[in-house]
Amino acid sequence: MTLSARNQLPGVVKSVVLGTVMAEVVVDVAGHQVVSVITRHAVEALDIKAGDSVKAVIKSTEVMLEK
Amino acid sequence: MTLSARNQLPGVVKSVVLGTVMAEVVVDVAGHQVVSVITRHAVEALDIKAGDSVKAVIKSTEVMLEK
Amino acid sequence: MTLSARNQLPGVVKSVVLGTVMAEVVVDVAGHQVVSVITRHAVEALDIKAGDSVKAVIKSTEVMLEK
Amino acid sequence: MTLSARNQLPGVVKSVVLGTVMAEVVVDVAGHQVVSVITRHAVEALDIKAGDSVKAVIKSTEVMLEK
Amino acid sequence: MTLSARNQLPGVVKSVVLGTVMAEVVVDVAGHQVVSVITRHAVEALDIKAGDSVKAVIKSTEVMLEK
Amino acid sequence: MTLSARNQLPGVVKSVVLGTVMAEVVVDVAGHQVVSVITRHAVEALDIKAGDSVKAVIKSTEVMLEK
Repeated sequence: MTLSARNQLPGVVKSVVLGTVMAEVVVDVAGHQVVSVITRHAVEALDIKAGDSVKAVIKSTEVMLEK
Repeated sequence: MTLSARNQLPGVVKSVVLGTVMAEVVVDVAGHQVVSVITRHAVEALDIKAGDSVKAVIKSTEVMLEK
Repeated sequence: MTLSARNQLPGVVKSVVLGTVMAEVVVDVAGHQVVSVITRHAVEALDIKAGDSVKAVIKSTEVMLEK
Repeated sequence: MTLSARNQLPGVVKSVVLGTVMAEVVVDVAGHQVVSVITRHAVEALDIKAGDSVKAVIKSTEVMLEK
Repeated sequence: MTLSARNQLPGVVKSVVLGTVMAEVVVDVAGHQVVSVITRHAVEALDIKAGDSVKAVIKSTEVMLEK
Repeated sequence: MTLSARNQLPGVVKSVVLGTVMAEVVVDVAGHQVVSVITRHAVEALDIKAGDSVKAVIKSTEVMLEK
């Protein structure tokens, strides 16, 4: 199946911090740092850890521009 | 002033499509395509056009991961 | 690959309205109407049309509660 | 008063996990699990607990599709 | 019923622009301009027009800070 | 540089609560309470504390209306 979200950036997990409910995952995407905040449950379900190859997925309506 | 949003990815505008209310801007970020949907008003206020250097700005809570 | 978004609700597309930039897709999920607004480009890329089986995917941080 | 958000799905709370700032609430909607992440403060202000009848409310622009 | 969203700012509608799918509504909140982009369908269902008293409702996780 | 987000409301920080990953910041905007949930990391990087002058920044597509 294909997801409608048009931003799917491949990268490598650099670090994971787990809170009680949320977790913060830092991903290196082509030399840029991308920070993802998802549930701790999702991190555990996908077993996300430093060194993993992942995609950062972002709905287009969530992307602002600065010029 | 500094914005709390932790994802600020530098890129170059590739194309702009204007609707009545919304606009779609495609940005090249380190060889990856990033699509931003903002208001037409914002595109006009910032005079965003192909070739512009911009930053794609994304709040961390909007970034999902796929593994 | 598996997406971190924890809400993935199966349903059937009831209608599609295309604007210049955005599109509105109404999906029936277990008898409840779910409305999705995504880019027209995404609707065309996935060839979404009435009668299609799809999943409505929602990041947990986007779900409010009313009581 | 009526809210513009067009996704308002009735369900029953299955579980609540409280963090320091955020809380995770799992809701059963017509047999499907819906996960909501809201502030701990909101959970306490609405006194949300297992067994409660609630609505999961989602803005249409936050709903992606997978096909 | 009470909504979990903790930002509910009272104001007066200044203008409405309708697109095919989306609509832009400008609201005056205590002298500050607040712009809301919702579906055209929602604007029509709530019959939102200049002069109306409304509340701008925003989930806390959508609010960034600049300092 | 100018950000495309069209809601930029000036206010004063009233309180900050830090969790492991997330933080909740309450801001007074023209007498209205605005709650922002951002990462703890962002609060620390910007050194946000009670009494600070800040702007609450919100993308237009995140603003719902109630009438």
